[in-house]
Amino acid sequence: MKILNKLIKPVHAHCDLMCGVYDPTQAKIEAQSVLAIMKKYQESDDEVFKQRCIYLKEQRAQLVKEHLWVLWTDYFKPEHVEKWPELHDLFWRATKQAGEAKKSVDPKDGEKLLELIGEIEKIFNQTKK
Amino acid sequence: MKILNKLIKPVHAHCDLMCGVYDPTQAKIEAQSVLAIMKKYQESDDEVFKQRCIYLKEQRAQLVKEHLWVLWTDYFKPEHVEKWPELHDLFWRATKQAGEAKKSVDPKDGEKLLELIGEIEKIFNQTKK
Amino acid sequence: MKILNKLIKPVHAHCDLMCGVYDPTQAKIEAQSVLAIMKKYQESDDEVFKQRCIYLKEQRAQLVKEHLWVLWTDYFKPEHVEKWPELHDLFWRATKQAGEAKKSVDPKDGEKLLELIGEIEKIFNQTKK
Amino acid sequence: MKILNKLIKPVHAHCDLMCGVYDPTQAKIEAQSVLAIMKKYQESDDEVFKQRCIYLKEQRAQLVKEHLWVLWTDYFKPEHVEKWPELHDLFWRATKQAGEAKKSVDPKDGEKLLELIGEIEKIFNQTKK
Amino acid sequence: MKILNKLIKPVHAHCDLMCGVYDPTQAKIEAQSVLAIMKKYQESDDEVFKQRCIYLKEQRAQLVKEHLWVLWTDYFKPEHVEKWPELHDLFWRATKQAGEAKKSVDPKDGEKLLELIGEIEKIFNQTKK
Amino acid sequence: MKILNKLIKPVHAHCDLMCGVYDPTQAKIEAQSVLAIMKKYQESDDEVFKQRCIYLKEQRAQLVKEHLWVLWTDYFKPEHVEKWPELHDLFWRATKQAGEAKKSVDPKDGEKLLELIGEIEKIFNQTKK
Repeated sequence: MKILNKLIKPVHAHCDLMCGVYDPTQAKIEAQSVLAIMKKYQESDDEVFKQRCIYLKEQRAQLVKEHLWVLWTDYFKPEHVEKWPELHDLFWRATKQAGEAKKSVDPKDGEKLLELIGEIEKIFNQTKK
Repeated sequence: MKILNKLIKPVHAHCDLMCGVYDPTQAKIEAQSVLAIMKKYQESDDEVFKQRCIYLKEQRAQLVKEHLWVLWTDYFKPEHVEKWPELHDLFWRATKQAGEAKKSVDPKDGEKLLELIGEIEKIFNQTKK
Repeated sequence: MKILNKLIKPVHAHCDLMCGVYDPTQAKIEAQSVLAIMKKYQESDDEVFKQRCIYLKEQRAQLVKEHLWVLWTDYFKPEHVEKWPELHDLFWRATKQAGEAKKSVDPKDGEKLLELIGEIEKIFNQTKK
Repeated sequence: MKILNKLIKPVHAHCDLMCGVYDPTQAKIEAQSVLAIMKKYQESDDEVFKQRCIYLKEQRAQLVKEHLWVLWTDYFKPEHVEKWPELHDLFWRATKQAGEAKKSVDPKDGEKLLELIGEIEKIFNQTKK
Repeated sequence: MKILNKLIKPVHAHCDLMCGVYDPTQAKIEAQSVLAIMKKYQESDDEVFKQRCIYLKEQRAQLVKEHLWVLWTDYFKPEHVEKWPELHDLFWRATKQAGEAKKSVDPKDGEKLLELIGEIEKIFNQTKK
Repeated sequence: MKILNKLIKPVHAHCDLMCGVYDPTQAKIEAQSVLAIMKKYQESDDEVFKQRCIYLKEQRAQLVKEHLWVLWTDYFKPEHVEKWPELHDLFWRATKQAGEAKKSVDPKDGEKLLELIGEIEKIFNQTKK
């Protein structure tokens, strides 16, 4: 825990400009879109439509990643990591799962992504109390 | 209303791919950010910080515009416009107000933007019933 | 027309910074590109080329949307809407048609998009007189 | 001219997908915007407005660069360079001038940029005959 | 370490497509640019130039963040985290420092950013052996 | 050589802001990625994976183009063109080859792109001596 201690000492905010307007809903909406595309892909047999699904899912999953990364780096602070030591790993698995959702057309991968974002949301909500 | 009639006839969805995952919350979060930046700008006397506020507010207000445009073009359908004939004008005023919020550092312009998005949200929620 | 009246009162420009340099040609060039891709898609039987067509048409049609949205929100003013009350609906149909052109590989959808941009151009040119 | 000869041999098109829809007007519109911003900057004494000018001019000048680069690499072919040997240098000077226009708030730099784009347009029009 | 164990079980790669072409040099080049801008800002007394510095530094520091996030999520795998348990925290501090470098015009903040990227590079190079 | 002479006279730097932090490695890393995708495409028979390859290769090849264009316009100066008169043509062929690499799934086109970037790198390194 030496690393954490080194970091915790100067407890000041590191958000880029404007603490306060962070919201995991942004990542969740894009992930819902990823899941919806996966389902539509499975139901369709129109080749053009399916190709567009692959491309649009890629973009949406990328936005999930970006919203999660911003939340991780800019919103959360050392005192949060001290209280929820699983935080780093949770974000790592969630962003990796967003990468997985780029590769997969199986709705289960979209659902797994939403579950991980749900875990992040739960912690986020507790920090707001 | 001839124009509308012409449009309403072929009642089919025009969303780019995936009806269902639209949410005015995306525009609202960015607009909250615009308002927060305006307030921080007013409170600060750090020249570098204030210049960053101008630049970051510009980006956030642009995202408000983009989220609203997508909602207007992709989510809403002719039957909605028939039921809420003020819809076009409401979106026009809201996106123009986002442009206004780029120019202004007065929090009142951020609040006015949020009010207009609130009106859009109200209609959006009714379409979901 | 109450909504319009409310809006018309404070007749001042709402462009983001620089009234004067707006031009529907930007949307038209991208739409010509959309149409050209549709034709090339139909003529080709190279699988890789056709997949690239889908992806590149998606991007070009997105640019059509963005150029049209900017024109609608930033260039046109309440007095224009009073004179051309079909303006909102025309932009709505044109941007919806750009969405349609993402989904379709039928050159007719590209032509229809160009026609709608042509109607916008006609009004735009009259405002310039 | 050995380099050119090496290149000219395999005379086939190198555009990314869709030869035919190239137009120097795209660069010209953005450059007109750069010039308009420079003039507005000079006329204004509103600090926020002037800071926005710097930022927005930067973006517009970047778009000039990008449109010119695409034209240079994707539209023009070895036979054009043979006929107009100044082509490379002209594009180099024009894109460098777009960089200059980022740094400068002197409308003369915007005019010089437009002149160079005009020279490119003249050659472009001749290739279309 | 329960969290790690859960993750390590299914040891397969999570990169988005193409393991192998990752390189911390991308983040380092952008961070060198951030540092160079900070120094130029300090030496200049040209108001326009200094405003451009703020804006361009913001963009470069954002690219540092993005390159680091991709490296963290896409390149590194559970076995790396097991071997270098400080990895998550190191990336967190480095991306937070990139955020710090947006706010600051003090070259020391650019140097600190480069040091943290240097630590990441050291681990990266060991994984390549 | 009249054109060059005209240009060489006012020997001052034209980089957008910050001479010194240019590096052909940025283009090289993206081109290595292009080559890696081509190889993976050839080895795979998973339809979704192959479609993603087309799309991701397109993006990476675009980044190659952009990094090369910036290097050409912003880093190199008239005295370099005087010393290496093949410079313009070399950049033209390299960016055209990046366009070729978008169209092709043949690893040879990726290798050819890397060779051309290697030639640019050689000249770049000599300018640094």
